[in-house]
Amino acid sequence: MKNKYAERARLVKPSETREILKVTERPEVISFAGGLPAPELFPVDALKIACNAVLNKEGAASLQYSTTEGYIPLREAISQRMKSIGINTTVENILITSGSQQAIDLTGRLFINEGDIIICESPTYLAAINAFKSYNAKFVEVAMDDDGMVMEELEKKLQEYPNTKFIYTIPDFQNPTGRTLKLERRKRMIELANQYDVLIIEDNPYGAVRFAGDALPPVKHFDTEGRVIYMSTFSKIFTPGLRLGWICADDSFIDKYVAFKQIADLHTDSFAQRITAKYMELYDIEEHINKIKAVYKERCTVMLSCIEEFFPKHLSYSKPEGGLFIWIELPDSVDSGQLFAECLENNVAFVPGAPFFPNGTKKNALRLNYSNMPKDKIIEGMKRIGEVLHRKLEKERKFPV
Amino acid sequence: MKNKYAERARLVKPSETREILKVTERPEVISFAGGLPAPELFPVDALKIACNAVLNKEGAASLQYSTTEGYIPLREAISQRMKSIGINTTVENILITSGSQQAIDLTGRLFINEGDIIICESPTYLAAINAFKSYNAKFVEVAMDDDGMVMEELEKKLQEYPNTKFIYTIPDFQNPTGRTLKLERRKRMIELANQYDVLIIEDNPYGAVRFAGDALPPVKHFDTEGRVIYMSTFSKIFTPGLRLGWICADDSFIDKYVAFKQIADLHTDSFAQRITAKYMELYDIEEHINKIKAVYKERCTVMLSCIEEFFPKHLSYSKPEGGLFIWIELPDSVDSGQLFAECLENNVAFVPGAPFFPNGTKKNALRLNYSNMPKDKIIEGMKRIGEVLHRKLEKERKFPV
Repeated sequence: MKNKYAERARLVKPSETREILKVTERPEVISFAGGLPAPELFPVDALKIACNAVLNKEGAASLQYSTTEGYIPLREAISQRMKSIGINTTVENILITSGSQQAIDLTGRLFINEGDIIICESPTYLAAINAFKSYNAKFVEVAMDDDGMVMEELEKKLQEYPNTKFIYTIPDFQNPTGRTLKLERRKRMIELANQYDVLIIEDNPYGAVRFAGDALPPVKHFDTEGRVIYMSTFSKIFTPGLRLGWICADDSFIDKYVAFKQIADLHTDSFAQRITAKYMELYDIEEHINKIKAVYKERCTVMLSCIEEFFPKHLSYSKPEGGLFIWIELPDSVDSGQLFAECLENNVAFVPGAPFFPNGTKKNALRLNYSNMPKDKIIEGMKRIGEVLHRKLEKERKFPV
Repeated sequence: MKNKYAERARLVKPSETREILKVTERPEVISFAGGLPAPELFPVDALKIACNAVLNKEGAASLQYSTTEGYIPLREAISQRMKSIGINTTVENILITSGSQQAIDLTGRLFINEGDIIICESPTYLAAINAFKSYNAKFVEVAMDDDGMVMEELEKKLQEYPNTKFIYTIPDFQNPTGRTLKLERRKRMIELANQYDVLIIEDNPYGAVRFAGDALPPVKHFDTEGRVIYMSTFSKIFTPGLRLGWICADDSFIDKYVAFKQIADLHTDSFAQRITAKYMELYDIEEHINKIKAVYKERCTVMLSCIEEFFPKHLSYSKPEGGLFIWIELPDSVDSGQLFAECLENNVAFVPGAPFFPNGTKKNALRLNYSNMPKDKIIEGMKRIGEVLHRKLEKERKFPV
């Protein structure tokens, strides 16, 4: 049989990081690798009540085909959440997606022509990189500092690349860095998008999980021309297994997304949508999110203090006020891929930073997840990474390369 | 803002038929339009038990992120089903998809280059047409008779179109015609696919719902070179709302599908997968399918006798032995789109046949669904269509066009 694959199949490989995650699933491994929420916080009992309520009262409807746009009460609840964070919206502006990964993928499908430029933070979310690359996009990376994407750099790139299709940004507790775009930069990003006529894809899965500092309005709050497409998910505030995300955008965009979602999967799981809506009707999801915040705050604080205590001095790392990740930049000489292999021998794991750079530049960074491990395992795991790192750096001092 | 959409967005419009379905949802309409299973047969109580069992024993795991390939016990159960219908397979050959629509869409994404030829039955499933068209495929239609796609015609087209990528076939109780590909043609299709080196996409959502005649092995049963990609779904044998489908194919294909599914939605709803696997563990799904068959058999029989009784004589229509649909060919002079409008005024609906022809040729056919309406409504609805049809044909006889 001769090769049958489409040319785009060359652009898509199984994610290395998902392969890494498989290795780290061994029970003896303390893993800071995945972006997994704490499963012990999933509201299992409440969900049981929601399941029974849905099946008792709307059993058949919850198991039947439904509309592509999504279950209206769920879209209404999301619309309320959007309003509460400063996005003026109605149910017509909300499309339910099969996780926010589908929102990302449909965005590529709807907007990207071969060779289109996407401007993104450097580094950025690797599953977005993989999705957009499958549509043959080119990435232009913009430097970040502790306050997120640097606007002077963004403007330079917008001047340099007039065929930019959109800016892809994760403004709150970014994956992988944990950094947050500061207020003035949000306003400036909108000004620049208007001036250079580009869209902004605001990917905001973590914004609701802020455990320190003051909440900032989303970039879309400042949108004056309907050019921000906002997307988020229930994965970090409820459960990821149900695969429920959403897109919030102008009606005209939503109509187009709906057409593509129809061919992608007809609609998102009706039952998952209904039990989530029922949960939000019966319980206060904000209370649940507060529990998540309290736990993540503690885990983040412990992990940060472990860096101080166990890691070599003078490393640069983020100090997130929310979300799931800490980003560490090691001395230039350290390849975090090699470090990963050595750490795994010591039964501790993280994600090496390289795949988060779409143009593959930086090898000396790594991402640590703190949401998925209890305090004692964080301490033990960080000790182990610290030891490996110390050994590695000492060796280098003895045998300079 | 200047137009931002990708060129492919021109190829994708909201499905007309889904728009039709919205109109037919008015409660006073007797609708034979949708392809909806009978909701009163959904095993709601059993599913409640399955939900509780899953949440009690594996609550956290069922709500967490999981693997792209799907939940292993569900893949195992599917693999067993595949064996029982004559497809020799292991769990490695099964990928869980978000409904079989996703299986169709990922197939387009994985295999279709711009301009590739897809050979299909004429007519064929319209959501597959829409999905494949979004990848810029060209369709070559092969005539059918009561025994499915005509093999002599297929061979001619394979000769005529050497850049054929695959044959897309729905061999059992085809959508929209309800026709079944006879045994010798299944064997012949494989021979031709081998000879002309093309793939076969066997879309088989209805095969398990056979209520008359003898079961036939799937086309993939005769596959000697791993060139048949088989796909099916729980939508017609369990519930469509949970959006669970699967692909059964050679490992090398599955690996590629997995890479694309990762970027499409990471994985299918974990909870839906686990409750479905639990249901299959606790209950005999074959018993459940037998109930579905009994009901559909009765409804189909009633609808067929209504055609005899209420419709003009000498119409050509299919007499399905399973599945959900009857296909009627009206006299050439009748445009079923106009007929649809007139029937809707009489609060009865079906789907006009035109959109099922990818190259848009035939206007005088229509698809009737019998699975979603009880017997009395079938009789009443068919009476109404019959009356409109009689009036229409009489008028034509008086004023010949």
